[in-house]
Amino acid sequence: MEKEEKGITVKKADDFSEWYSQLIQKAQLADVRFGIQGFIVHRPWGFKIIKKIYEYLEEEVENQEHDPMLFPIAVKEESLMKEKEHAGFSPEVFWVTHAGSKKLEERFALRPTGETQIYPVYSLWFRSHKDLPFKAYQSRHTVFRNEMTTRPFLRGREFAFFETHNVYNTHKEALDQIKLDLKTCDEVIRKKAKIPFLYFKRPAWDKFKGADNTFTPDTIMPDGKRNQLASTHDLGTNFAEAYDIRVTDEKEKKKYVWQTCFGPGVWRIMAAIIAIHGDDKGLIVPFDMAPKQVVIIPIIFKNKTAKEVMNYIKIIEKKIAKADFKVIVDSSDNKPGFKFNHWELFGVPLRIEVGPKEVADKKVTIARRTDGNKTTVKATDIIKEIKKQAKELDSQIWKNAQKNFDHNTRDAKTLDDVKKIMKTHRGFIRIPFCSVDKDGEECAEILKAETQGGNICGTLYPKPEQVSKNDKCAVCKKQAKEIVYVAKSY
Amino acid sequence: MEKEEKGITVKKADDFSEWYSQLIQKAQLADVRFGIQGFIVHRPWGFKIIKKIYEYLEEEVENQEHDPMLFPIAVKEESLMKEKEHAGFSPEVFWVTHAGSKKLEERFALRPTGETQIYPVYSLWFRSHKDLPFKAYQSRHTVFRNEMTTRPFLRGREFAFFETHNVYNTHKEALDQIKLDLKTCDEVIRKKAKIPFLYFKRPAWDKFKGADNTFTPDTIMPDGKRNQLASTHDLGTNFAEAYDIRVTDEKEKKKYVWQTCFGPGVWRIMAAIIAIHGDDKGLIVPFDMAPKQVVIIPIIFKNKTAKEVMNYIKIIEKKIAKADFKVIVDSSDNKPGFKFNHWELFGVPLRIEVGPKEVADKKVTIARRTDGNKTTVKATDIIKEIKKQAKELDSQIWKNAQKNFDHNTRDAKTLDDVKKIMKTHRGFIRIPFCSVDKDGEECAEILKAETQGGNICGTLYPKPEQVSKNDKCAVCKKQAKEIVYVAKSY
Repeated sequence: MEKEEKGITVKKADDFSEWYSQLIQKAQLADVRFGIQGFIVHRPWGFKIIKKIYEYLEEEVENQEHDPMLFPIAVKEESLMKEKEHAGFSPEVFWVTHAGSKKLEERFALRPTGETQIYPVYSLWFRSHKDLPFKAYQSRHTVFRNEMTTRPFLRGREFAFFETHNVYNTHKEALDQIKLDLKTCDEVIRKKAKIPFLYFKRPAWDKFKGADNTFTPDTIMPDGKRNQLASTHDLGTNFAEAYDIRVTDEKEKKKYVWQTCFGPGVWRIMAAIIAIHGDDKGLIVPFDMAPKQVVIIPIIFKNKTAKEVMNYIKIIEKKIAKADFKVIVDSSDNKPGFKFNHWELFGVPLRIEVGPKEVADKKVTIARRTDGNKTTVKATDIIKEIKKQAKELDSQIWKNAQKNFDHNTRDAKTLDDVKKIMKTHRGFIRIPFCSVDKDGEECAEILKAETQGGNICGTLYPKPEQVSKNDKCAVCKKQAKEIVYVAKSY
Repeated sequence: MEKEEKGITVKKADDFSEWYSQLIQKAQLADVRFGIQGFIVHRPWGFKIIKKIYEYLEEEVENQEHDPMLFPIAVKEESLMKEKEHAGFSPEVFWVTHAGSKKLEERFALRPTGETQIYPVYSLWFRSHKDLPFKAYQSRHTVFRNEMTTRPFLRGREFAFFETHNVYNTHKEALDQIKLDLKTCDEVIRKKAKIPFLYFKRPAWDKFKGADNTFTPDTIMPDGKRNQLASTHDLGTNFAEAYDIRVTDEKEKKKYVWQTCFGPGVWRIMAAIIAIHGDDKGLIVPFDMAPKQVVIIPIIFKNKTAKEVMNYIKIIEKKIAKADFKVIVDSSDNKPGFKFNHWELFGVPLRIEVGPKEVADKKVTIARRTDGNKTTVKATDIIKEIKKQAKELDSQIWKNAQKNFDHNTRDAKTLDDVKKIMKTHRGFIRIPFCSVDKDGEECAEILKAETQGGNICGTLYPKPEQVSKNDKCAVCKKQAKEIVYVAKSY
């Protein structure tokens, strides 16, 4: 493995942006030296964590009876143009115009989100109401979007992708799916990745262009910016009408279908794990997501005990591997202190130290990545102890993330308050607001301009907070109809 | 599900090409109606089989300690040009030139095989011999190659992709990896997918351009054409020299690294499964690869027994699902005969029929997809019977494939013989040949021209057959140095 002699040279609290960049490069999560802007190399250490995210998502949606499928990454110009009124993505689209030295007869586009690829074909597949519901997902590593500014795992011109595209006979079934999507976010983002979030219904001006409604789990990153971790869309019959997706009902009459699509942000979840859990020493990941869960480090003072220590380690290693934990022994010729720093940088949850004393006492010393706590236990108890320590580590990761997130929403009543709070506050700001329908957009634009980028995230979902009749819109001072959350976003 | 009222309308033996196209569309493996040539939709039924191929491959290479990684799909023009002398792929490369309505400042390429993407970055990763070996793989769904003629799962402009890229200190380690790649082919292609093949060392003029040697497992499709199922390359130090991938040895001296890469053809394996195992009724797949393994079909004559039958089926279904088999009940209002045909088309390995008689006797009737054999067993024995039938089905699939492949190599001594045999023969033709080094290329070209496309596949690997001193090259009549195999290819 490539050695990084130095750890991260800045503190997370002092310069989050630099800390984030250094961590990604030094813990070998990604390599930004590929040479085309916005295209990164996923190195094995980082990609193993991303594979876990995919694995969890696939498991959840398959449990909900979604089938895997795969559509081309290319789009016909004709299909793209048809959608233009629904989702005006064109500046984000890459165009393939040549092959070798020849111009293609018909150029094609590369673009994110599958509606334009998928729905023209869906219109060929379903004929009768009996063909529905149809639930399918695409779990793909590559999708393209032309972006001006890029950041690993937050915004790329090529990025990891996952989406479901579902078709129903009724609007009720579609709305039930939205609830299941929320459950998927709970299971994967909150329970597995240990990222706390709030679930919002986006305001009318910020929903996906072809959707009746858009719902998103948003978290707050250490720099105070909102990270949208997923989005799920109630598409109504909008795309069905645009692409003519119809089935016959019980009375053999043609009707438009109802659709939903759900896109968890695989990269965004990865970014949240790195940014929210990591510390000044490096990466921290939940136990089950770690590429290696236990590292064993020999502590050798004299050569004469070296062989004994290494033999003892071999037995311990075998035992841990047999219990299906991912274990690695660092028998390189670096000093123990160097090794400690190295594996802390890489976020290995548990470190086992074995020296002559441990061998003599038939014990091992276990150190926890989160708080450095050390415990010495009998070698016979090692599996039990790893399980216990893993549970404690996960609980610390969750509590730490929660501590920074919960009770971190500040209230404001006026635009001036918002501006003042936003200068130092790293969390949501809750305000009374006139409307989340189209007629509130003007106030949202004023707020954004006045706060240099503050966005209305929307109302809490599924239970929006109630306004009192004294609540006035923080911007226009008219009677407030909603309580909304404000944050800057990436 | 979309109903296909009719099965395949041609016989496999009469018109393989039409049979293959109809099967793919009617068993919903892929949809070719996407609208851009060479870009197909992977429908759920087909994609589940492809996911299994990926799963098997990943398991094998991970057992060999390859780590997952992911490189961009894009290539810098500069890296591409550097490789040109090694692998002259340029007419196969797509160019992305625009984003939205604007021309990109620097265009980038989309191309198959990762050398140009990966090796410039590898040159940054390894410094010391202690950083090696490095073994990693990319398992990705999308890769591009500009092709003139396209065919689902055989040749596409976007296709499924899998490759390993390994770096070693010594040539010996690289050659050992080639043997492990052969083992992966054995495990996945032969044992799991039940596709027989021969392993060849390609002649000098047909190896991968940057490789010292190329090895491939080739099978024969029902139309007599060769299907190259994978390739593994001994890259020597060629790319290391081109991209300056060096490490320091024990004496702190810089040396070039040794490399191998291995690319099993995920699509090609899928094509072989469809083409070799399928019959006039439709798809046949090995039991473990089937999207659904058991279909239960109610046989209901009178309404008064319908409820009893359906209740009984529910119990059976639960039992089968609990044993972790993929089971589906077809309770649609189609006639049983229609359902039989439908699920045979889709290749479900076992069909369970349940009518009033089965309910009364507490039995079920199981029919096997391969030979239609029916067995009636006690409901209490159902799991045992499914396992037994699955084993028998797999054994029939393998025997059938083997029967068509083994003993299907014909010998020829002269070019005239080859031409005569090739007119009707659907298999390899074995001939004595002057040389598989560069000096044999002229004879290979003559053979290709005279036989309208016959290719020299190479010599058997790892044990080439011995020539006798009476063997003369089938083309030039000089002393033969090799026994080689000839077949037309896709």
